[in-house]
Amino acid sequence: MIHIYTGNGKGKTTSAIGLAIRALGHSKKVCLIQFMKKNFVYGEIQFLKNIPNIDIYQFGTAELVDINNPADIDFVEAQNGLEKAKQVLSDANYDLVILDELNVVLYFRLLKIEQVIDIIKNANKGLELVITGRYANEKLLALADLITEMKEVRHYYKKGIKARKGIEF
Amino acid sequence: MIHIYTGNGKGKTTSAIGLAIRALGHSKKVCLIQFMKKNFVYGEIQFLKNIPNIDIYQFGTAELVDINNPADIDFVEAQNGLEKAKQVLSDANYDLVILDELNVVLYFRLLKIEQVIDIIKNANKGLELVITGRYANEKLLALADLITEMKEVRHYYKKGIKARKGIEF
Repeated sequence: MIHIYTGNGKGKTTSAIGLAIRALGHSKKVCLIQFMKKNFVYGEIQFLKNIPNIDIYQFGTAELVDINNPADIDFVEAQNGLEKAKQVLSDANYDLVILDELNVVLYFRLLKIEQVIDIIKNANKGLELVITGRYANEKLLALADLITEMKEVRHYYKKGIKARKGIEF
Repeated sequence: MIHIYTGNGKGKTTSAIGLAIRALGHSKKVCLIQFMKKNFVYGEIQFLKNIPNIDIYQFGTAELVDINNPADIDFVEAQNGLEKAKQVLSDANYDLVILDELNVVLYFRLLKIEQVIDIIKNANKGLELVITGRYANEKLLALADLITEMKEVRHYYKKGIKARKGIEF
């Protein structure tokens, strides 16, 4: 099954992490691949890196990607993430694979949608695939078995509250 | 801050669990109180019960509540959950408290909204409170700093696929 968690509200990556925990609790094997997230201390990674049965790979840089002018490294990291995802999606050892922020990578045109569709169509049929991030691509949505839109109804950042350790990262 | 994760889509409880993992990764102390969930094997609980720095309490029964005719035990369990929540919300040791499915408890009228608002208004100001479940009460929404509606755009259960271990529970 293919899940897509998208929308502008809080809860996309955390849902995927919670699903990973649920799967781990039933002794399933999980792979978390994060795009556009590297060299930054995320609480969930701090926790999960010491847990058995979940493998974690991060791609990207600590800098924000400039959507109007992405750097070469942004393209290279996205491509490296795609290669890893391709390998993992064909690995029958995994029950659940999370491609975190892949929707944003596509929105930023760091990868082509056809590349992503190609690896998804060739994925091991037994696995559960979760793709997160705002701005999900229509062609990807068309392939999904489950889509949740995390819709922001209210958010405290509009009151000027900045991202806080343990809550936003 | 008060977060409410509501709506008819997948991802409410898992978001709360993912947020717990994020908080735990930054050495925060978490309490998870689940309503209408007891005596059933949830993967997330199987996993979390052995993890330090998170305390878990479950209330309810393994049976579905009959909304038209709740059993006495449903009211008793909801009340016991409320008492535990009251105690935990005034405990300065906790950084993050999750009241999982509390929205549904209120929708089923197992507790009165005034009881819940009372304990929330008296909660320790430093803590982050997350309330999950469909059908969030308007009076509770009015108190929230953050509301995400997990909106079902597509769900495979409509194709007849039943809840699966490690994914739905």
